[in-house]
Amino acid sequence: MTAFGFELLASDGAARRGRVATAHGTVETPAFMTVGTAGTVKGLAPAQVRATGAEILLGNTYHLMLRPGDERVARLGGLHEFMRWPGPILTDSGGFQVMSLSELRKITEEGVTFRSHVDGAKHHLTPERAMGIQRNLDADITMVLDECTPFPATEPEAAASMERSLRWAARCRTAFAERPGYGLFGIVQGSVYRPLRERSAEGLKAIGFDGYAVGGLAVGEGQQAMFEVLDWTVPLLPVERPRYLMGVGKPADLVGSVARGIDMFDCVLPTRSGRTGQAFTRWGSLNIKNARHQEDTRPLDPDCRCAACAGGFSRAYLHHLFKAGEMLGPILLTQHNLTCYQDLMAAMRGAIAEGRFAAFQADFAALQAQGDLPPL
Amino acid sequence: MTAFGFELLASDGAARRGRVATAHGTVETPAFMTVGTAGTVKGLAPAQVRATGAEILLGNTYHLMLRPGDERVARLGGLHEFMRWPGPILTDSGGFQVMSLSELRKITEEGVTFRSHVDGAKHHLTPERAMGIQRNLDADITMVLDECTPFPATEPEAAASMERSLRWAARCRTAFAERPGYGLFGIVQGSVYRPLRERSAEGLKAIGFDGYAVGGLAVGEGQQAMFEVLDWTVPLLPVERPRYLMGVGKPADLVGSVARGIDMFDCVLPTRSGRTGQAFTRWGSLNIKNARHQEDTRPLDPDCRCAACAGGFSRAYLHHLFKAGEMLGPILLTQHNLTCYQDLMAAMRGAIAEGRFAAFQADFAALQAQGDLPPL
Repeated sequence: MTAFGFELLASDGAARRGRVATAHGTVETPAFMTVGTAGTVKGLAPAQVRATGAEILLGNTYHLMLRPGDERVARLGGLHEFMRWPGPILTDSGGFQVMSLSELRKITEEGVTFRSHVDGAKHHLTPERAMGIQRNLDADITMVLDECTPFPATEPEAAASMERSLRWAARCRTAFAERPGYGLFGIVQGSVYRPLRERSAEGLKAIGFDGYAVGGLAVGEGQQAMFEVLDWTVPLLPVERPRYLMGVGKPADLVGSVARGIDMFDCVLPTRSGRTGQAFTRWGSLNIKNARHQEDTRPLDPDCRCAACAGGFSRAYLHHLFKAGEMLGPILLTQHNLTCYQDLMAAMRGAIAEGRFAAFQADFAALQAQGDLPPL
Repeated sequence: MTAFGFELLASDGAARRGRVATAHGTVETPAFMTVGTAGTVKGLAPAQVRATGAEILLGNTYHLMLRPGDERVARLGGLHEFMRWPGPILTDSGGFQVMSLSELRKITEEGVTFRSHVDGAKHHLTPERAMGIQRNLDADITMVLDECTPFPATEPEAAASMERSLRWAARCRTAFAERPGYGLFGIVQGSVYRPLRERSAEGLKAIGFDGYAVGGLAVGEGQQAMFEVLDWTVPLLPVERPRYLMGVGKPADLVGSVARGIDMFDCVLPTRSGRTGQAFTRWGSLNIKNARHQEDTRPLDPDCRCAACAGGFSRAYLHHLFKAGEMLGPILLTQHNLTCYQDLMAAMRGAIAEGRFAAFQADFAALQAQGDLPPL
């Protein structure tokens, strides 16, 4: 079993080309982590997920602790065996979804008490319990439990929340069971306030983690504010550790964040929007339910290698599937969107390795400005 | 392009091993036709359907005429091209679903008028229009429009309905556009009344069709009554034409009907029940949502070659997917059930070819009596 680690292979400006090594294999970075919330990427079998180019999945602790339960997952051999995904898995801490999905939350210094949205049962989530759950799930990358600062928050509110997250991060570090190939990531908080982001980054570095996430972004602050936070924060993070921007984002967010030194991303956008009919292409995005697609015999993107495009499924057919409420529509658009995201990451990795990331960024912006394929 | 035809390869008692040749390829019989109602087998891409062993799909005229519309399908290259299924397709006439799904039906000698369940629009379906729609869809096998006799019906009611269906069958034969490799099937009606079934079969034979279906069964009459109708009806059908039992059925129904000389079947059971958690196995069926499966690490059937079983997905995981409402559960159970059905058909074809169909029937009954795999 390999030690957990990060290898920096190349740099181009602030952009980095690297490789994360875990107990279940390696991940080429910059990497997009596909979200498999409840032990499945919705609608796809693991081989289909792998075919999009995915090397690592994200599992949601909140969902899995409630159903089927982390102890049951452990008895069944861990999340990799349970869902038949042999590659690396990162799990979040559960904190974010406790805030957004559960009922009757109460947060204290000890942790958070909440009622399950599934069956109303009462649960406790503490830094120590978050480590235990992610150990039961057998996550290659464990995330510290943090308090998700609401947005907007005043600077004193954000400061108090960030300081609590730092104290919880220290407890997580202590509670985390070290194993070769398994890593623990800290999460920089501090909302849109530069002194707080600096204090958070310094505090986490003093504790010491295997990787550093930037949290509390993509919550409504806008792309410009997000990039500004990255401009302050990323340079404070250790060069020799992977950097993970949580919950981001649109393709242009990924490109701009890679340019600022981010190595890892996760987002429900390609999967969730695929299920509602939004398809990403090199030229932007389109809504396949729009009537203009109803007799369009072209694929979403004639050069795309995904199951939908290379499979010859026309926009007209995809339109029909969505209008008729057929499962195959969300399935094919999910495959397409994930492939589009993975190919964007691969293109960025190639550009960084070859020292042409600035040119890549310019080409990307020009394509996105062009809009969709020309009309039939 | 081959001529439409049926080759009888072997017989064993009344059971037949044959081959149907169509414009889009051949179908080994006895065959189970997978239902792809609205231009898709729900949840599966065509390659996945093919991997179950399917050689021919059934499309529903009623659904497709309403959405996306048969003329649109024709403009998009026909149903094979539209849904990317290169093999043979049979379409029903639409009559059955007009009766069961549409609103404000009115039946006259001319045809049936109804309102779409999709948008309330008024539609007419006549024998001539049914032929035109199926021509637009490019069905390899077209079914005549018949009046679906309600069950139960008195003998006079069933007689009047059957006689109208015969008159419609003659109009369909006249309206059907002959093309090499394309066939038109008549449908024997007459409810549970032997003289009516005889009159219907003789009337259809006098018109002359490329194949003969037995309709109006599996509507609540029970397996024994269904087999009795087959015992009367099948011997009246031409030996040199394929025989199709519509809407049937459970595995034991298929075995008993093959024993009585049926060559083709269609049924939503493996797909529809797969979506609700019912899995068919060699030993019968089980409901994967049952709590007894929640920590069962075995596949549905350790010897099954389907994507779910050979993919290593445990009963515990499938149980979780259904409890969590995850799409992958219905997808995997649909693949399993269709594979189970296709492997049953393949086993019957082998047994007939080798003259051991009676022994196959006995083995099948013994397995079904055994129940599920022994408990863990």
